[in-house]
Amino acid sequence: MEQVKLKENERVDDLELKGLKIIQNKKAFCYGIDSVLLSDFSKEIKMNSKVLDLGAGNGIIGLLLCGKTENTNIVGIEIQKEICEMASRSISYNKLQNRFKMIDGDIKNIKDLVQKEEFDAVVTNPPYKKENTGLKNESETQIIARHEVKCNLEDIISASFYALKEKGNLYMINRPERLTDCLVLLRKYKIEPKIIRLVQPKKGNKPNLVLIKACKYGGEFLQVKEPIIVYNEDGSYTDELLKIYGGRKWRENYI
Amino acid sequence: MEQVKLKENERVDDLELKGLKIIQNKKAFCYGIDSVLLSDFSKEIKMNSKVLDLGAGNGIIGLLLCGKTENTNIVGIEIQKEICEMASRSISYNKLQNRFKMIDGDIKNIKDLVQKEEFDAVVTNPPYKKENTGLKNESETQIIARHEVKCNLEDIISASFYALKEKGNLYMINRPERLTDCLVLLRKYKIEPKIIRLVQPKKGNKPNLVLIKACKYGGEFLQVKEPIIVYNEDGSYTDELLKIYGGRKWRENYI
Repeated sequence: MEQVKLKENERVDDLELKGLKIIQNKKAFCYGIDSVLLSDFSKEIKMNSKVLDLGAGNGIIGLLLCGKTENTNIVGIEIQKEICEMASRSISYNKLQNRFKMIDGDIKNIKDLVQKEEFDAVVTNPPYKKENTGLKNESETQIIARHEVKCNLEDIISASFYALKEKGNLYMINRPERLTDCLVLLRKYKIEPKIIRLVQPKKGNKPNLVLIKACKYGGEFLQVKEPIIVYNEDGSYTDELLKIYGGRKWRENYI
Repeated sequence: MEQVKLKENERVDDLELKGLKIIQNKKAFCYGIDSVLLSDFSKEIKMNSKVLDLGAGNGIIGLLLCGKTENTNIVGIEIQKEICEMASRSISYNKLQNRFKMIDGDIKNIKDLVQKEEFDAVVTNPPYKKENTGLKNESETQIIARHEVKCNLEDIISASFYALKEKGNLYMINRPERLTDCLVLLRKYKIEPKIIRLVQPKKGNKPNLVLIKACKYGGEFLQVKEPIIVYNEDGSYTDELLKIYGGRKWRENYI
């Protein structure tokens, strides 16, 4: 592994998965449980698939998919130039240049960035919040990652339709409050919702995340699976979460 | 309480709620947990409200709402003449003619049956299954109750839009596999989904029912609440279910 070149406020975190590491900027957006859940939800992506990550950020989902899938080829699109460049450095650091590349670009210009129907799968952890909602004591990079400033859900789903092959799958994580928006837009763009899994912090809690798998030109039949429960009553991780994390310890500052 | 006149295959069941009884036909469609859950989910309906039950069947939801709400006025529409007449006999038997009336009619002709924007709330337990799916060893009345033979989900949601006052609420129960259909059609008809509760047979099981509250001209913000769990690990009812049932024993043949 080559020498890592870190910029101000950057650190290297160990993904504790096949030796993979990620460069993160403490002042920007560090990955959370949503990225880990999404990569696990989409790890069924078949060998030799081409995968597109829309709004790839620091590349966390692509890096985890490099560890969790075999021989997949991943393209990440990220509009924030510095974040995109940081993700590219993580890719080099992990010597994954032959599997994973980042494109600095705007999802709204998807037609200039990738070929039509080039991808077997799309993964996306989009901004959850509408443009004018939420906290304002966030950095600009955090606001862009969390709020629909640069693109909205329709831009992402429309871009997914363009990029996906027929019968290709979209894997998304979002907030339950956006479920109607997700299902309405997916059907509008003929990417039919096939599987939903809600994520509850604890048994008896309301869910705070939702995983959605949808298939381009898929038939109309939705499976709502059993929810994922994150914590046991005593605050420890459930067996399912420990399995998703590969048994590794979870850091408080990622939650 | 007057003498009950039963027809062939009919029986009287005690709802164990304020002395209410229901006439059911053993060969037709007897009420199940879905009706009980829906009446509980919609019991927040305010005093003096006008409530419309679309596809009222044997009147179970209206009868339970007479017990669970105060001074509400309920109209049930049912396309099957004999079932509608049976529901009317249950209403008379319970001396609820001043609160609850049945109309034998087709939801697709809603404009001939009720006034526009006449209702504060709509409740509906619609046929879950598309016309050409499911078991065929069912009686005709069961097929009409369970399959979209006489009307489909869009007919029901379109009728709800017509009948609801501005800011009136729709309360529906359906199968999770129809969730996309429900949310897409509700938004199409400007009855915005506001609350979803999934119902799981047991903790760790996938849900088999979904309760949806939606508001005509409501704002776009969905709350997905904690799921309802029906059974404990040992097969007994959970505390929440016992509360919904008012502590009464559940009969195996209703499940």
